[in-house]
Amino acid sequence: MLETLDLGLKLSKSDYKAAIDRAGIELGLLQRALREAGIPVTLVFEGWAGAGKGDAIATLVETLDPRGFRVFAPRRPSEEEALRPALWRFWHRLPARGAISIFDRSWYHDPTIARLEGDLDRRAWGRAVDEATAFERELVDDGMVIVKFWLHVSRKEQRRRLAAREAAPGFEGRARDDGGLRRKHRKTLALVEEMLSISSHRQAPWVLVAAEDDRVRRLKVASETIAAMKRALSARGIAHPTPLTPEKLEGWKPPRPHADTLEKTPALPRRSPLARVDLSRTLSRERYSKALRTAQDELRELEFLSFERRIPLVVVFEGWDAAGKGGAIKRLTEHLDPRGYAVVPIAKPEGDAAARHYLWRFWEGLPKAGHFGIFDRSWYGRVLVERVEGFCTEAEWRRAYGEINAFEKTLRESGCAIVKLWLHVDPDEQLRRFREREASPVKSYKIGDEDWRNRAKWPQYLRAVSEMLQRTSTAHAPWTIVPANDKLHARVTVVKTVARVLGRRLGR
Amino acid sequence: MLETLDLGLKLSKSDYKAAIDRAGIELGLLQRALREAGIPVTLVFEGWAGAGKGDAIATLVETLDPRGFRVFAPRRPSEEEALRPALWRFWHRLPARGAISIFDRSWYHDPTIARLEGDLDRRAWGRAVDEATAFERELVDDGMVIVKFWLHVSRKEQRRRLAAREAAPGFEGRARDDGGLRRKHRKTLALVEEMLSISSHRQAPWVLVAAEDDRVRRLKVASETIAAMKRALSARGIAHPTPLTPEKLEGWKPPRPHADTLEKTPALPRRSPLARVDLSRTLSRERYSKALRTAQDELRELEFLSFERRIPLVVVFEGWDAAGKGGAIKRLTEHLDPRGYAVVPIAKPEGDAAARHYLWRFWEGLPKAGHFGIFDRSWYGRVLVERVEGFCTEAEWRRAYGEINAFEKTLRESGCAIVKLWLHVDPDEQLRRFREREASPVKSYKIGDEDWRNRAKWPQYLRAVSEMLQRTSTAHAPWTIVPANDKLHARVTVVKTVARVLGRRLGR
Repeated sequence: MLETLDLGLKLSKSDYKAAIDRAGIELGLLQRALREAGIPVTLVFEGWAGAGKGDAIATLVETLDPRGFRVFAPRRPSEEEALRPALWRFWHRLPARGAISIFDRSWYHDPTIARLEGDLDRRAWGRAVDEATAFERELVDDGMVIVKFWLHVSRKEQRRRLAAREAAPGFEGRARDDGGLRRKHRKTLALVEEMLSISSHRQAPWVLVAAEDDRVRRLKVASETIAAMKRALSARGIAHPTPLTPEKLEGWKPPRPHADTLEKTPALPRRSPLARVDLSRTLSRERYSKALRTAQDELRELEFLSFERRIPLVVVFEGWDAAGKGGAIKRLTEHLDPRGYAVVPIAKPEGDAAARHYLWRFWEGLPKAGHFGIFDRSWYGRVLVERVEGFCTEAEWRRAYGEINAFEKTLRESGCAIVKLWLHVDPDEQLRRFREREASPVKSYKIGDEDWRNRAKWPQYLRAVSEMLQRTSTAHAPWTIVPANDKLHARVTVVKTVARVLGRRLGR
Repeated sequence: MLETLDLGLKLSKSDYKAAIDRAGIELGLLQRALREAGIPVTLVFEGWAGAGKGDAIATLVETLDPRGFRVFAPRRPSEEEALRPALWRFWHRLPARGAISIFDRSWYHDPTIARLEGDLDRRAWGRAVDEATAFERELVDDGMVIVKFWLHVSRKEQRRRLAAREAAPGFEGRARDDGGLRRKHRKTLALVEEMLSISSHRQAPWVLVAAEDDRVRRLKVASETIAAMKRALSARGIAHPTPLTPEKLEGWKPPRPHADTLEKTPALPRRSPLARVDLSRTLSRERYSKALRTAQDELRELEFLSFERRIPLVVVFEGWDAAGKGGAIKRLTEHLDPRGYAVVPIAKPEGDAAARHYLWRFWEGLPKAGHFGIFDRSWYGRVLVERVEGFCTEAEWRRAYGEINAFEKTLRESGCAIVKLWLHVDPDEQLRRFREREASPVKSYKIGDEDWRNRAKWPQYLRAVSEMLQRTSTAHAPWTIVPANDKLHARVTVVKTVARVLGRRLGR
């Protein structure tokens, strides 16, 4: 079964580039369509050690909105996990409707290793695999999309890659000795093939991937993910989103532009830290590409170092509507190891969070040591939207400054690096972006009545933001105001700032 | 400070009995009043090793509704916990509004031990204590009631108790070597007194408890808890609930009784397992008390054994409205070590749970090995209320039988003992209890329009229950139908059944 895969497949660089770019655009559109339809997606990556699971995941997620997925790399079960049934830790990490969970190793890994090492007999192993497939069936019945990838390389190629990994410094070494599946014996292949065959069912089939060639592997993963997402939409009678062609554009008519809700440019409050921002700074596309990549590469190195040294990082993104938070987060994360960070999107609290202190859900969402937690909006909602909209009392938001400073001090003292970014645009630039969104068939979904309502409150927000910046810019966790009228300049500033703060924390 | 406590205080048995009974009734009423007002309560138990923290907690919770509190005994931080700031594991366990969290050891323990052992210097220790008190202040500002108990015994008494514990078999041994605070050196007392004094603030003062005499200790804990709960109600302008006196009763008028919503006794579906239930069985009050206590004592022994052998237990309570689930759960838990079980009340899913597969929250709520998870309603809601009320599709509830059987099989195979109880009453008995609730000033809060609406659907529920019992009574997880027309008989049956199943699982 595996041995019949054509491992010699190749793709030319130009063919690959065209295909992967097209796939990336489609994945982004499909992710949004599935989110809107409330369809959860689980992607499982299994395969031989060294077959390129990490690379396949990293390439795939580059094209996704990082606010909509989480990557998990379950290794040895923790104490808490070991005290529960084996599937507990996987149930725990399942995506909510509309979200994506990606597993670098899954419920199939431990039973396979245990069987090979003689810790599970044939019957117990078969039961574990049956349990796993029953688990998948239930999830699919409930509306989840599951795609399982098995990445295959030859025995010889595996040996070559593992040797290279042993010799390599940095990130690759991270997986050095983490119990991956090695093709030492003939019986290993037989067992894996049996596992693949009994756990391949209609609802969640295995996709066998010829993984020796990087391009072939990456493209196969992207195209199979796309196909599965499309099948899920078709099954619900939802049309596939497709990239816009000139013909389609011809028929599109923008809705009537919304009247501006802001009468005049509001004056800055006295001593506002925003007064010192120079919004005129720009960056050429050419310098942007180079500077961004340099900063991203540096951050990736720091990510590895922080993992090794168990230093956590918290990044807070706040800013005006349309200031470019989403795009900046995308650039911040796109070349990171996706197993090392999580983007936490913050909306109105619900359920458990709504029944507790407002800081509770942020404590829950803290990254563990060695990981990055990136908050898309944050605890500052207390002194921004909750203050302005009256969702909390004045006493509550006034008290929050001290509470937030204490919270961040606690984080800092526990060893965490903290970066807080305010993405700043002026009202004219916001209006320009709102109008651009209204007029664009690709972006019009990003603008609605609520944005216009918020814009009308610019003066109130300006007061709240200024006071927030003054009161919570502390020595242990200062704010960085990012001039964001120019998106390119802002993105580079964001990545550089995070790298600078983390670098300093790591003594570099 | 501590040495001025009068450790020689005594209470006569009869004085104690009268006072603790009165306190118990008050605590029950206050718990309900605080739940209704949405006030969360955190009780912290600290003190010398052997001072009786476990006993104080056990006595206190005997009078509480077990569906409204959780007891936590944090010991050494787990791996996941050690990778976050020290307060993370406590934030995680904070009560929701209206609920109670009880900590046997808190955020004060580790810094104190670390300081004594020289692992924290004076400054770092002071910072940890400051952080802890700031944490409490925030919670109190947000509406939480916090009471912190410090249980004090003399050095001599501690030596005596620890020696006795070393020699004792069973439960007491559980705490044998768990890093408690021993009065070895003079400086220990000085450090503790300093900690108590700098962390005693108006919002959450320490209550120093003379803990040598069991009765004095237990009563002090109960009365201080009562006082704090009353203060919280007063601060919100809510009248204290008080036990009903004949004078108060005189003024009380029951509301007009609701018309019965069930026209005639519905016929049992063919082959319903409910046909074989003998509802005529009763138990005298005298035999009840003896039989209940015997069964409870046996279960407590089994609880210890299951803790030692890391066997988890899941108990599922389902039954008709007013069948006596709450009272049965109360008797099941009242003499258990409260650190060993959790009661999980199941209502309509919200937030994270509502955004996922219906089984997700039950996986999340599974007890860890060696603990009891007691579900007050359960995953069977899928084939009961969700079926009857149309909250899920027919395909969904039909599929659920198999999913539930598979879920329980997984539990069973992971080593868990499972008890599933259907508390059965007939429609006449339910009507009698509904009427009794309506007519009682103490119980009228327990009956409302929804109960009458459910009663009208008795025939539909009867069909659903019968089918559930047939389809999900498996060899690995059979149902026990508990005849519950007689409450006393039902309670004894419940405790005995749980003890029997767990005993068998433990090979006794």
